[in-house]
Amino acid sequence: MTTINVQASHSYNILVDKGIIKNTGDYVQKVTNSKKFALITDDNVDKYYSKIVIDSLTANGLSVCKYIFPHGELSKNFNTLNEIYGFLANNHITRSDSVIALGGGVTGDMAGYAAATFLRGINYIQIPTTLLAQVDSSVGGKTAIDLSFGKNMVGAFKQPLVVICDIETLKTLPKEFIIDGMGEVLKYGMISSASLFETLLSSDISQIHLKLPEIITECITIKKNIVEADEFEKSERMLLNFGHTFGHAIEKYYNFTGISHGKAVAIGMYLITKAAVKNKLCNNDTLNRLKNCLEKYELPYSTEISLDKLCELTVFDKKCNGDKINIVLCSSVGKSEIKNISLLDFKKFIIGEE
Amino acid sequence: MTTINVQASHSYNILVDKGIIKNTGDYVQKVTNSKKFALITDDNVDKYYSKIVIDSLTANGLSVCKYIFPHGELSKNFNTLNEIYGFLANNHITRSDSVIALGGGVTGDMAGYAAATFLRGINYIQIPTTLLAQVDSSVGGKTAIDLSFGKNMVGAFKQPLVVICDIETLKTLPKEFIIDGMGEVLKYGMISSASLFETLLSSDISQIHLKLPEIITECITIKKNIVEADEFEKSERMLLNFGHTFGHAIEKYYNFTGISHGKAVAIGMYLITKAAVKNKLCNNDTLNRLKNCLEKYELPYSTEISLDKLCELTVFDKKCNGDKINIVLCSSVGKSEIKNISLLDFKKFIIGEE
Repeated sequence: MTTINVQASHSYNILVDKGIIKNTGDYVQKVTNSKKFALITDDNVDKYYSKIVIDSLTANGLSVCKYIFPHGELSKNFNTLNEIYGFLANNHITRSDSVIALGGGVTGDMAGYAAATFLRGINYIQIPTTLLAQVDSSVGGKTAIDLSFGKNMVGAFKQPLVVICDIETLKTLPKEFIIDGMGEVLKYGMISSASLFETLLSSDISQIHLKLPEIITECITIKKNIVEADEFEKSERMLLNFGHTFGHAIEKYYNFTGISHGKAVAIGMYLITKAAVKNKLCNNDTLNRLKNCLEKYELPYSTEISLDKLCELTVFDKKCNGDKINIVLCSSVGKSEIKNISLLDFKKFIIGEE
Repeated sequence: MTTINVQASHSYNILVDKGIIKNTGDYVQKVTNSKKFALITDDNVDKYYSKIVIDSLTANGLSVCKYIFPHGELSKNFNTLNEIYGFLANNHITRSDSVIALGGGVTGDMAGYAAATFLRGINYIQIPTTLLAQVDSSVGGKTAIDLSFGKNMVGAFKQPLVVICDIETLKTLPKEFIIDGMGEVLKYGMISSASLFETLLSSDISQIHLKLPEIITECITIKKNIVEADEFEKSERMLLNFGHTFGHAIEKYYNFTGISHGKAVAIGMYLITKAAVKNKLCNNDTLNRLKNCLEKYELPYSTEISLDKLCELTVFDKKCNGDKINIVLCSSVGKSEIKNISLLDFKKFIIGEE
């Protein structure tokens, strides 16, 4: 088993291996005295993994109550959150109990946010079951829900007690979700690892599953290092938002349905890099290699949405500060930087002079 | 002007003086580079103080948008919170802007919670205008909203940038609100200051306004010391919950209407002290002095709700841990301690053997 330790607000481990969710009971007992757990999951994941997790907890003498919500980003809203609070209250979850988030990014974000705020904060444990959640959303303590105004508009920084990353769960993941996760994997290559990018470029979606264990560990390690340096996203952590400015705008345009997060980020990475090339901050070769790599993982790089409309939608982005915005650019593969520019200049940067 | 510095997650000042809200613009510029402020207040407070605050901000070249909600604890819920998020998003409030909470405990709790969670946290400033908010809820960073299951069930710890405590605002406060605040003032005397308690006992509700400036400063100082020692309420900070176990239960029983927080806490302090006397953990003289003092400030010490029912309602209390509860007892005036007992023993402690 690979153990990656994260030194954030508190220290915790990310455990990576095959078949480890059946030991959930053992792992949680090492990090908490909780005797009662609120398992939060969606209807898809529930079918495959709830029983394994619950059996492991009860075998260790721990009690569990379970809340299931309909899968998908559309559930990551105020209504589901309110229902989760009701579920926690009805089950008399107290400050000595813990929440377990079992599932993908939506589950982790929402269950984590509920744990961050119920009773002003109770402990929680992440069991990510999608590639996207394993390489990205379950690491680093960002939790959130969406508002109609934008993605992840309400949230909290809340680090888990432990992350149980069972890569065998990816076996039940439909191909579309692997593609989705590869959007974020590719991002890590672009922002900080030319070698990871080369690994990706030398493979494709049909072969990648064999390399995933190493790739997942590498992505988590990259993110861990960034989060340790800047837990609350005051500077360096913003690099992880590469492709996300337009990514979130695209997701919002489709009302958080119709396009997956990873695909939206893929388009976002390509568009911002194209603008960087136009502004002579990146060479054409980098853009072409990014495009090749996106194609290898069946990720999109264009959208029907106009650049004008995308710029308009970024006004609601969390990365705005006053009338300025922080954008992330890659000057070459593996090299990224943050640029703070005015919203006016941002539009010029993307579209050019009028 | 009295300046009380609080060393919590970050260091900030509580400014106490008469007529200082007219200088809000100056004070906020010393603690933030924000150029845009979201002022959140209720319809009552708005009539008296919004204009003064807004004028001071605009005179300093700062821009302000204002959100007004209907006064009262019933507003401290999910619906108002959601509306505040919408207001912040519609006004393009970003991470470099700040929220100002202008009003009593409800405003501070809810605006503070919105600031703690919108965009995963933006800065906020407290301008408490009630006695209760000035001595208690605006100090120490607790923010929350109520659920139907209980008071302050969802919340966050979020310290303000500065607290502007203008004691002249108490002049427009109806007597009922002074009585309400005196419930918490008396609590400070009971848990940690025999001298404050003596001051209170030697006066009454008709005379107390002359002594309020000193009393407010003393209460804030007591709370500041406790919060600095235990910001996240792992131990010592629980002492501030004296009277609150039954206090919250009583508020919940009346669906957060019909009884004010301070009055509910008054009854809670009396009932728990009565139980302490019965269990030989406090003498009868302390109980009688508490009763005398409550009477002097027209605070209640009894309720129509049965002890059985009150015990039942405490199951939802945040102070529960698993099947145990932390209760706060005063062995004498000015001396308090935390007792962790099982819910079963708690009922025996209150009601006696069956």
